[in-house]
Amino acid sequence: MRTQVGIIGAGPAGLLLSHLLHLEGVDSVVLELRDRAYVEARVRAGVLEQPTVDLLREAGVGERMDAQGLPHDGISLRFDGADHRIDFAALTGRRITVYGQQEVVKDLIARRLADGGDLRFGVSDVAVDPRGTITYADAAGARRTLDCDVIAGCDGFHGITRDAIPAGALAVHQHTYPFAWLGVLAEAPPSHHELIYTYHPRGFALHSMRSPRITRLYLQVPPEERIEDWSDRRIWDELHTRLAADGFTLAEGPILEKSVTGMRSFVAAPMRHERLFLAGDAAHIVPPTGAKGMNLAIADVRRLSVALTALLRNKDPEPARRYGAECLSRVWRAQHFSWWMTSMLHTFPDHDPFQRELQLAQLRYTATSQAAATSLAENYVGLPYAR
Amino acid sequence: MRTQVGIIGAGPAGLLLSHLLHLEGVDSVVLELRDRAYVEARVRAGVLEQPTVDLLREAGVGERMDAQGLPHDGISLRFDGADHRIDFAALTGRRITVYGQQEVVKDLIARRLADGGDLRFGVSDVAVDPRGTITYADAAGARRTLDCDVIAGCDGFHGITRDAIPAGALAVHQHTYPFAWLGVLAEAPPSHHELIYTYHPRGFALHSMRSPRITRLYLQVPPEERIEDWSDRRIWDELHTRLAADGFTLAEGPILEKSVTGMRSFVAAPMRHERLFLAGDAAHIVPPTGAKGMNLAIADVRRLSVALTALLRNKDPEPARRYGAECLSRVWRAQHFSWWMTSMLHTFPDHDPFQRELQLAQLRYTATSQAAATSLAENYVGLPYAR
Repeated sequence: MRTQVGIIGAGPAGLLLSHLLHLEGVDSVVLELRDRAYVEARVRAGVLEQPTVDLLREAGVGERMDAQGLPHDGISLRFDGADHRIDFAALTGRRITVYGQQEVVKDLIARRLADGGDLRFGVSDVAVDPRGTITYADAAGARRTLDCDVIAGCDGFHGITRDAIPAGALAVHQHTYPFAWLGVLAEAPPSHHELIYTYHPRGFALHSMRSPRITRLYLQVPPEERIEDWSDRRIWDELHTRLAADGFTLAEGPILEKSVTGMRSFVAAPMRHERLFLAGDAAHIVPPTGAKGMNLAIADVRRLSVALTALLRNKDPEPARRYGAECLSRVWRAQHFSWWMTSMLHTFPDHDPFQRELQLAQLRYTATSQAAATSLAENYVGLPYAR
Repeated sequence: MRTQVGIIGAGPAGLLLSHLLHLEGVDSVVLELRDRAYVEARVRAGVLEQPTVDLLREAGVGERMDAQGLPHDGISLRFDGADHRIDFAALTGRRITVYGQQEVVKDLIARRLADGGDLRFGVSDVAVDPRGTITYADAAGARRTLDCDVIAGCDGFHGITRDAIPAGALAVHQHTYPFAWLGVLAEAPPSHHELIYTYHPRGFALHSMRSPRITRLYLQVPPEERIEDWSDRRIWDELHTRLAADGFTLAEGPILEKSVTGMRSFVAAPMRHERLFLAGDAAHIVPPTGAKGMNLAIADVRRLSVALTALLRNKDPEPARRYGAECLSRVWRAQHFSWWMTSMLHTFPDHDPFQRELQLAQLRYTATSQAAATSLAENYVGLPYAR
């Protein structure tokens, strides 16, 4: 069997790539290890930057996002016991939209299926040859071979496509942060209408949400922390302590999900090897503090869809040749922003008192300087795509 | 003998304080270990931020600065082999003035003497009792006692006044950077009309100047570096390497002075103990990268002159009570800015490749984002004094 683009992974990156290619008349097949119900329920990122929202809308898959997504015109930095709002709309004219990654996935799957797209869930034993061949077992267990003009690795950080590139051909930059995030999904209405990023001497905390009924909350914890050691009661107590502020009451509710996730920055380059192109988390991950992970993946596949259309429809190899380098400029900007937000808001076990005072000086400056607040805002709402 | 304000140190802080107090009808005596010729020749800082320039002008001591100072409307960040100008004037409407610290000192000494000020050079064996007594030997060696309503410690980081505060009453924050600056003063015309802050894989370099005939140049070196190991030839070769850029030629000339200075951040608080007030380097030092040291000292004594005028002329103790806390807000802003400039521009021996890429991402962002450039600019030209 043949296709123009074999796509590994039915997350937002793989599905959107398949859709964007379809709009350009390029056909693709999407292979996914999990079943459809799983990927449609997988809770991950939830903040769409403005360029992401614009792109999904332009691609004709923004209808439910526009109806159900929660537009936010700002966030709050909470420190010294008070809130300091960063007004995205006033500072940049743009905003973010809170809309879960799984909702984006649902919309894209529905659209691909409506358009006759070829999505194959529940495959296994996937192997990739960067020269253009994918082998796998289908959902019924039968061995299959898919010959592709190109392969797109959209299978995330723990996927298999990056490993298909010979180690000697890949340069990796990475950084591990000395803490993790304990995240909970709670059946409780958000306690504030926007996100609250909190710096507290006991550690970072984040108040976020997924919908008017579902709150998403995070606590900075040591990297080796075990979720078993955190009863729901202990989680709520710690959240109450760190999020305390005048006039703020944290609403509690049943905890639906809880987990601990380490924080790491990772960049693999180049993002192409022979006929294999990497996109999104398969090539780079950021700490979640700047809410950039899914947005970077979307930016990658936007560029990849243009490059592959040029390559496969117009026989122009140039955009595909420049693909990785052009993505990496945005990736490093996001890495720096994510590192900066992380450094400003977390407590670091090895910091001396001087460094702790610097953090507070940074927070106070960001909250009071229009230039500094604009810098945060323009990164958070998403810098415009480069040409 | 009595005076209202006994001032230790005839640097810019002590002299300006004496002058500002005189304008308010408060008398003072300035004691200085060195002789007049020495302090008038001592090469130190050379960049005046806008609030400093405005203050000196308003205080009637800006005439020669306005005639001979070099106004600069921007600086360049040099990296990736090219210049990226930060246009202070366009971004903030303000500018900096290159005018040596020793010139400020000359102007203030001349003005104090013209106004009948009491400046005592060449004193020795100075001891301070925070309850209001200074003892010292005058230039002829005779023991003297000076009874003061208050004492101002303007004697720099290595002075004696900070040590007159009991250790238990002082909280110190400090940070040592893993490099030093090798600075040279050369009899050569500046090779560019503005300052050039250079990030180079071999280390930071700075092109600056003191006058149309005198260039000031700096090289990042290891902290333990000995100046004896740096021949003039080696210094020029290293400067040529790090400052290389298309269309740029570094003019050489006889090196008049060269030295290696360690880089440290230091903040002592509170800045007052009983009748003793600290100002400038006696209380805090910053790494020189942001050119903030002398400017902070000037900001301190501006506030101190107001506080002491209220205390001594109007018997209002409130401004003096708030003096330290109000200064420290600007001090920490400057500490953070100086740390930020330093971190962006120097190579760090313990940085991994990821952190080096972050530095480049920061530089590229600062050079291309108006918000980020404005943030650098507003700090460099000097944030307005708080009320």
